[in-house]
Amino acid sequence: MAGSKYAYVRNFELPDPLLQGTFMVFRLDGHSFHRFSDAHEFNKPNDLRALQLMDHAAQDLMEQYPDITLAFGESDEFSFLIRKSASLYNRRNAKIVSTLTSFFTSSYVFRWTTYFPDTPLKYPPSFDGRIVLYPSEREIRDYFSWRQTDTHINNLYNTVFWTLVQQGGESTTQAHATLKGTVSKEKNEILFSRFNINYNTLDPRFRKGSTIIREEIPEDSQTETSTASDAAPAKHMRSRTKPRTRTVVLHCDIIKDEFWVARNDILSS
Amino acid sequence: MAGSKYAYVRNFELPDPLLQGTFMVFRLDGHSFHRFSDAHEFNKPNDLRALQLMDHAAQDLMEQYPDITLAFGESDEFSFLIRKSASLYNRRNAKIVSTLTSFFTSSYVFRWTTYFPDTPLKYPPSFDGRIVLYPSEREIRDYFSWRQTDTHINNLYNTVFWTLVQQGGESTTQAHATLKGTVSKEKNEILFSRFNINYNTLDPRFRKGSTIIREEIPEDSQTETSTASDAAPAKHMRSRTKPRTRTVVLHCDIIKDEFWVARNDILSS
Amino acid sequence: MAGSKYAYVRNFELPDPLLQGTFMVFRLDGHSFHRFSDAHEFNKPNDLRALQLMDHAAQDLMEQYPDITLAFGESDEFSFLIRKSASLYNRRNAKIVSTLTSFFTSSYVFRWTTYFPDTPLKYPPSFDGRIVLYPSEREIRDYFSWRQTDTHINNLYNTVFWTLVQQGGESTTQAHATLKGTVSKEKNEILFSRFNINYNTLDPRFRKGSTIIREEIPEDSQTETSTASDAAPAKHMRSRTKPRTRTVVLHCDIIKDEFWVARNDILSS
Amino acid sequence: MAGSKYAYVRNFELPDPLLQGTFMVFRLDGHSFHRFSDAHEFNKPNDLRALQLMDHAAQDLMEQYPDITLAFGESDEFSFLIRKSASLYNRRNAKIVSTLTSFFTSSYVFRWTTYFPDTPLKYPPSFDGRIVLYPSEREIRDYFSWRQTDTHINNLYNTVFWTLVQQGGESTTQAHATLKGTVSKEKNEILFSRFNINYNTLDPRFRKGSTIIREEIPEDSQTETSTASDAAPAKHMRSRTKPRTRTVVLHCDIIKDEFWVARNDILSS
Repeated sequence: MAGSKYAYVRNFELPDPLLQGTFMVFRLDGHSFHRFSDAHEFNKPNDLRALQLMDHAAQDLMEQYPDITLAFGESDEFSFLIRKSASLYNRRNAKIVSTLTSFFTSSYVFRWTTYFPDTPLKYPPSFDGRIVLYPSEREIRDYFSWRQTDTHINNLYNTVFWTLVQQGGESTTQAHATLKGTVSKEKNEILFSRFNINYNTLDPRFRKGSTIIREEIPEDSQTETSTASDAAPAKHMRSRTKPRTRTVVLHCDIIKDEFWVARNDILSS
Repeated sequence: MAGSKYAYVRNFELPDPLLQGTFMVFRLDGHSFHRFSDAHEFNKPNDLRALQLMDHAAQDLMEQYPDITLAFGESDEFSFLIRKSASLYNRRNAKIVSTLTSFFTSSYVFRWTTYFPDTPLKYPPSFDGRIVLYPSEREIRDYFSWRQTDTHINNLYNTVFWTLVQQGGESTTQAHATLKGTVSKEKNEILFSRFNINYNTLDPRFRKGSTIIREEIPEDSQTETSTASDAAPAKHMRSRTKPRTRTVVLHCDIIKDEFWVARNDILSS
Repeated sequence: MAGSKYAYVRNFELPDPLLQGTFMVFRLDGHSFHRFSDAHEFNKPNDLRALQLMDHAAQDLMEQYPDITLAFGESDEFSFLIRKSASLYNRRNAKIVSTLTSFFTSSYVFRWTTYFPDTPLKYPPSFDGRIVLYPSEREIRDYFSWRQTDTHINNLYNTVFWTLVQQGGESTTQAHATLKGTVSKEKNEILFSRFNINYNTLDPRFRKGSTIIREEIPEDSQTETSTASDAAPAKHMRSRTKPRTRTVVLHCDIIKDEFWVARNDILSS
Repeated sequence: MAGSKYAYVRNFELPDPLLQGTFMVFRLDGHSFHRFSDAHEFNKPNDLRALQLMDHAAQDLMEQYPDITLAFGESDEFSFLIRKSASLYNRRNAKIVSTLTSFFTSSYVFRWTTYFPDTPLKYPPSFDGRIVLYPSEREIRDYFSWRQTDTHINNLYNTVFWTLVQQGGESTTQAHATLKGTVSKEKNEILFSRFNINYNTLDPRFRKGSTIIREEIPEDSQTETSTASDAAPAKHMRSRTKPRTRTVVLHCDIIKDEFWVARNDILSS
């Protein structure tokens, strides 16, 4: 064959299988999203449209990859839990990382106009991805607790910061100085005493991030749910095997046991 | 800090640096593009719009990453040569693979309507990516020879196949049977004797694939070139350091020495 | 500093940490031990001296590395279980594999004359080693079941084979032919009907391999045990932390639950 | 088969091939040799017997592995250059590292009594090993320059230090203080002015380390050389293919070009 004398270059490809029997967490982050959110005038401290777009892309990814049992997102990042027993792409690292990051990115751009009908994309946004392996359920629980704690810390800071700027008339430099060294309690106090805002009553979406799970669709409601799904992009259906399931976005606590006890299929093989 | 007791999960992240002093070849391939091209009614055997879109996304990637010195594409795949001395993202494998695949994908979707103004995207397309390391120039030369030989083999087959179907009235089953076991010479002969087509005079874009290089912009032509660039998406500018360069798409032989001798900066550090 | 301009070559060293929170199994095998056992006239099918020497080297390794909680050996191979929480050499793969293989080899050669006082070493024997990671206890149990099943299969075959040769007067070619295609039951039958040997009453060392565990030394018996230890190389002491422990060689079943239930510290962190 | 239900544990073994077309440098180091040299009363600053034993083990390794084209040793470490084209053990990392470290260790213990006839081994010494890949000849040259520069720096320091102690009557604490902050020139000066020792005339073995190469055996001298080899452990023969070669220990400069220009087979494939 004409190409055969060059085909030896394939032998330089090295295998990169991920250890069997371990949970994979696939996390992606927006690349230079500070600049991207400025260029597209995202609302501060949270842009509802941008967060819903992230959720939608994450749901698309879960529809596409049944091995994903859970997703959690905040700001411009999302984490996906891939079941321990998954043999997705023979557990090849670069294949999984690149394909999932690509699909998420593609969905994000594809659905942009749905969430930003009046804001044309100025340039193509991108994400980076990575996979981390965890051997046990304890570590998975702690991983997601780590991310949700991070959501809380970031959102509290950003909420106070932008309230000081937008309602308190402080410059961004002043607001940083005001917050420097404060602990959570003091941040809550600033919000409450100066702006009469009770942090704990703010939209849980911002305080708790987005948790996406799969939910069974009751047999008799499948037709009507399907219709609902078209209208509400937060609910999608898939029907590979019965029972049919759809992905659902929640904004709830995932640190305490309750969430997990009620959904033990998330961590099962 | 509130999150600190969970932060230990970060320690499960493993380093994945790529060996220094080696060329990296980053190759990406369309994921399920057979289905994608059918769904969006690509022309057979080659869809000029789809190829130009691939080229444009590849040029965008080269604009973004100065460490890429050469790109070669055919069909739904593209290979990028990253210079030996590159310290891009500290040569972390997953970071490079995911970010570059994401950016290319994003550009592809972002620019879709430019090339397919009348064909709305039905769903988000995706790509997979991988990096292969090569220690020496010989292997890089052979890698690109391997890809261009592959372009030739595939395009000759597809050209004859679709001519048999579109002009010869054969079914796809018949066309496969007609071609089974034929060598290049016989395929050329079918084209010529039955359809009066001289394969070697067909558009070199289809026969040779797309090779993208960087080219210096002559000082005095920079303003006008810039204008030209806006009109012709095949030429982009960058100006990080002088001399300013732009990427240029060629459809030429890259197997013989001539291409490389004239451009020895491609393989230099 | 004089050497500094060359020191950059250190940067080519790549990190190779093993995933945290997983059990490591370190297995080593004799390199070309068929030739080695012939050259040193090992008894067939089992050479007690050679097996005891292997056990002793394995015990030395366990004395040296407290993170090893269990070892299992047969013929010229030994497997070591390293606890999940071990931070030995920062879990660097090459460091652990090379150091442990080296130490075992060294002990084997060092103690050779103790077990082969009349057989001088003709040349230096060597071993290869590898580490395999296992995320859960189930897999560790199955790993050791796999090795002990292998011991059984090999030893039954070898026992019948050499009995046919040594007592049955068959050539090795004939013995192979006699055994070809036989199942365990038939092999037992040959031993019993032709040679009046009940396989299950043979020395468990040969049938079950060597399992090495750590055992606490009762406080009041430590002095006398120490003396016993000197005489019997199968028992060694260590006293890093109280309670003092020693390694003990067993020849028992490790497939059934009983062994593990009685020693749950083997799998604990 | 009886063991088949456990055999799945083999699937947890991960491949670890080393990139093709690159030089491998295998370096091993004595493990806790400070303690080992004290326990066996090595002479200071250099023990000729210990160095010759290291050389002998290194030669044994080169005899065993024809892919090694060069070795360089100092103190308790040795580096081996494995040719770029080597397919040794299919370039599996753990296999190569463990086997070579094991064989070297074994030879070291095996030959101990030859060099230390009056000093019985007190316990088994061990080594750790690692492989580093280098893509080009420049890096290999710089690697060996790095090691030989290190030899020089260490030996100069140790020579002055022990002269101060052994001939100058200083305590080790005093000697360290005397040398603190001194540059090479000052160390040479101390040796010369206080002890009338010209460092550059000391045995090159100590100043330059041991470089082991392969040398062709002239056809007509093969019989007599063979005899010489038996007497002098520094020369060994091998005859796998003609021309027959033997390994030879040199104590020469390997930083300058001369050594390499005269032996261009060392770096060839």
